Amino acid sequence: MDFRTIIAKRREGMVHSKEELTFLAEGAAKGDIPDYQLSAWLMAAYLKPLTDQETVDLTIAMADSGDRLDLTGVPKPWIDKHSTGGVGDKTTLVLGPLLAACGLSVIKMSGRGLGITGGTVDKLKSIPGFSTDLTPKKMVAQAKKIGIAVAGQTAHLAPADKALYGLRDVTETVTSLPLIVSSILSKKIAGGADTVILDVKCGSGSFNPTREQAEKLADALVAIGKLAGLKAYAAITDMDQPLGSSIGNALEVKEAIDVLTKPESELSPNTKRFRELCRYYAALALRVSGIAPTAGEALTRIEDTLQSGRALDKANQWIKAQGATVDFNETSWLPVAPVQIELHAKMAGCIGKVDARTIGEIALDLGAGRHEKDDEIDLSVGIVLNVKVGDLISENHLLATVHAATPEAGATAITRLEHAILIQTTPIPPRPILIRPA
Amino acid sequence: MDFRTIIAKRREGMVHSKEELTFLAEGAAKGDIPDYQLSAWLMAAYLKPLTDQETVDLTIAMADSGDRLDLTGVPKPWIDKHSTGGVGDKTTLVLGPLLAACGLSVIKMSGRGLGITGGTVDKLKSIPGFSTDLTPKKMVAQAKKIGIAVAGQTAHLAPADKALYGLRDVTETVTSLPLIVSSILSKKIAGGADTVILDVKCGSGSFNPTREQAEKLADALVAIGKLAGLKAYAAITDMDQPLGSSIGNALEVKEAIDVLTKPESELSPNTKRFRELCRYYAALALRVSGIAPTAGEALTRIEDTLQSGRALDKANQWIKAQGATVDFNETSWLPVAPVQIELHAKMAGCIGKVDARTIGEIALDLGAGRHEKDDEIDLSVGIVLNVKVGDLISENHLLATVHAATPEAGATAITRLEHAILIQTTPIPPRPILIRPA
Repeated sequence: MDFRTIIAKRREGMVHSKEELTFLAEGAAKGDIPDYQLSAWLMAAYLKPLTDQETVDLTIAMADSGDRLDLTGVPKPWIDKHSTGGVGDKTTLVLGPLLAACGLSVIKMSGRGLGITGGTVDKLKSIPGFSTDLTPKKMVAQAKKIGIAVAGQTAHLAPADKALYGLRDVTETVTSLPLIVSSILSKKIAGGADTVILDVKCGSGSFNPTREQAEKLADALVAIGKLAGLKAYAAITDMDQPLGSSIGNALEVKEAIDVLTKPESELSPNTKRFRELCRYYAALALRVSGIAPTAGEALTRIEDTLQSGRALDKANQWIKAQGATVDFNETSWLPVAPVQIELHAKMAGCIGKVDARTIGEIALDLGAGRHEKDDEIDLSVGIVLNVKVGDLISENHLLATVHAATPEAGATAITRLEHAILIQTTPIPPRPILIRPA
Repeated sequence: MDFRTIIAKRREGMVHSKEELTFLAEGAAKGDIPDYQLSAWLMAAYLKPLTDQETVDLTIAMADSGDRLDLTGVPKPWIDKHSTGGVGDKTTLVLGPLLAACGLSVIKMSGRGLGITGGTVDKLKSIPGFSTDLTPKKMVAQAKKIGIAVAGQTAHLAPADKALYGLRDVTETVTSLPLIVSSILSKKIAGGADTVILDVKCGSGSFNPTREQAEKLADALVAIGKLAGLKAYAAITDMDQPLGSSIGNALEVKEAIDVLTKPESELSPNTKRFRELCRYYAALALRVSGIAPTAGEALTRIEDTLQSGRALDKANQWIKAQGATVDFNETSWLPVAPVQIELHAKMAGCIGKVDARTIGEIALDLGAGRHEKDDEIDLSVGIVLNVKVGDLISENHLLATVHAATPEAGATAITRLEHAILIQTTPIPPRPILIRPA
């Protein structure tokens, strides 16, 4: 087979056979097809989108382009929860141990952050001793024993997606729906998943700025997921303002620990909103896996698991199993930025906007994220927000605290942050965290 | 400027600024833009074609991506004739010296062959001692002295086109009209041309299989050429059957020498058809350059220049100036293939088809051309055709002679050739060589 023929077919909008897509995935995985040919195909596929059947075939071909994780022996039900990525999204840190404590097996491959979107793997690096570098064998053994394992992505799983994803980023072909869907689902299938819960983010801090785009992505993920043999569920949640109060690696770990250790009444309003998201997805997972027959029973069980400390115990068990030399019972071990600067409101009013994209960019420039894939990150820096859309505030109210490496970086961040948080005179309602349930 | 922004604009069908296309051409020439990004842009440009103004801007940007040949001091009128490429096209070998002998200055950069299309540079290699490796300085000095210089393409002229052309070939983006036009014209402009005559081939042996495609290309070459400041003329000629009798490097040189040395009456019918094409383009050149006011006067002058031997003398002067140790007065120095096999007609009838594509492929496989750009070629091998479409033949009529390196290669070629030459019972008219005049 000559890959040029495959490029020409895509260019003409013709339908690829399964064999052609397998040839593509294997060639991309092995490096047999040069990047410049893959790029030409990607652009053709962007402008002449794959059909559903082609997307399924590509998904499975990419999942089969490397090893598949064999979860045999891990107690069922299994769950894999995936977020399309957003600013301040630390959900896995709470949801993982919470679901494991409820009796599900949580096996998850997480990514590193790139651009304004943080990565769970980076956040977990704030925990001294914690390693995400697990072999497939170790992952499965750990999941069998304690019901949870979270590893960084390995080159052995879905290597075709790794090759294509790297090229999409630099050839302006990221936002093709079939390519996004096959990229997400191929990694889930290669990771052994049978049930996947997808958190599709919508708003300025995600790559779905509009609700219409988010709905299309959610629908496509569920439809293609089902055709590919998965039980797939997708809800749409708000990413127009950041999730929770904290943006930045150690700061987000701290917020997740707060949710695991404190009663809801002691949490900040922003963190309560994050807790609500965790509760929603936890309840969904319990229902679809058959552990709780109704939403009511699911929520009761979740509250009980959180309030009894069983979720915290599971979290401690989990991080110890992956090498942590500390635990979540206290947080004095977390790295702290040398400079903290507060931003106060210059006027009274209603919070009209807390722009997730801009705040993500500020955190990125403070050093919390990566501009290029090999950049070093600073675990301690970031932003703690003290307001959310709809809050009524008085003059001089604390809006946010910047955690920076230097006074200069902090001052720059504060100036930019002033423009990201809009105070208006007309009151507006708060933004619901859940935009569309699964 | 980030090239990703340029890719995204093309992807959305937005119009590029001159600055963006200059950034592209310079980046491609210097190797600053990676191949995988250029490929993505090429596919986007294929599916969202450049406007005329963008094509002009790209043409000029590519012409300016390297050196421009400075023809100052070369006597005017200057002429550059370019063929879009076909099977058996040895026109430059006759037209060059013929026009130079008529008082024009012919300065031409010629390509090597790739695929079924032969290259003038390869044909000229059949002449012992002849070198196409001229410096720009030497080219200009020679053109000043004798009115003709033909060199191989140099990396210094239009390097952006070289980079893009190489990628187009392997990414199925060759056949985009604006990309073809800017590729052809950028090289002409970089070569210092002011007047360009374009021979647009049409038929199975060219990349314009249909008349419609050829007309679009001819019209675009003229329109964009004019916008780019050239005097541009394009005629469409037949390439459904090969041009002339010979396909293969030394064999084509021999045919060109025949035209320069023999009266028309002594030429084979196929070679007469090739001579007719040379006459047409020579007359066009004389008219557009103002040397002959009417077609009639132009043709008289051409016949006189050929029949008097002045074209032959100019050809000898030319090849000596470029190092030839032989001359065109006789041809015993031409390399001859060790094996010649004749193909005779199995039935009487009318020649219905002499398929240029298949015959080009047979010549290629005999060793006359290159499959890959670094292949060695065999100068002596090829095919001599003795029939053309519309000829009425009796049984056992000589159809063609294969010149091969081995009896096996010759036998294979003969078998394939039988299928490329169709003999039918219904008579059909001959194919005119000129499909649409300039």
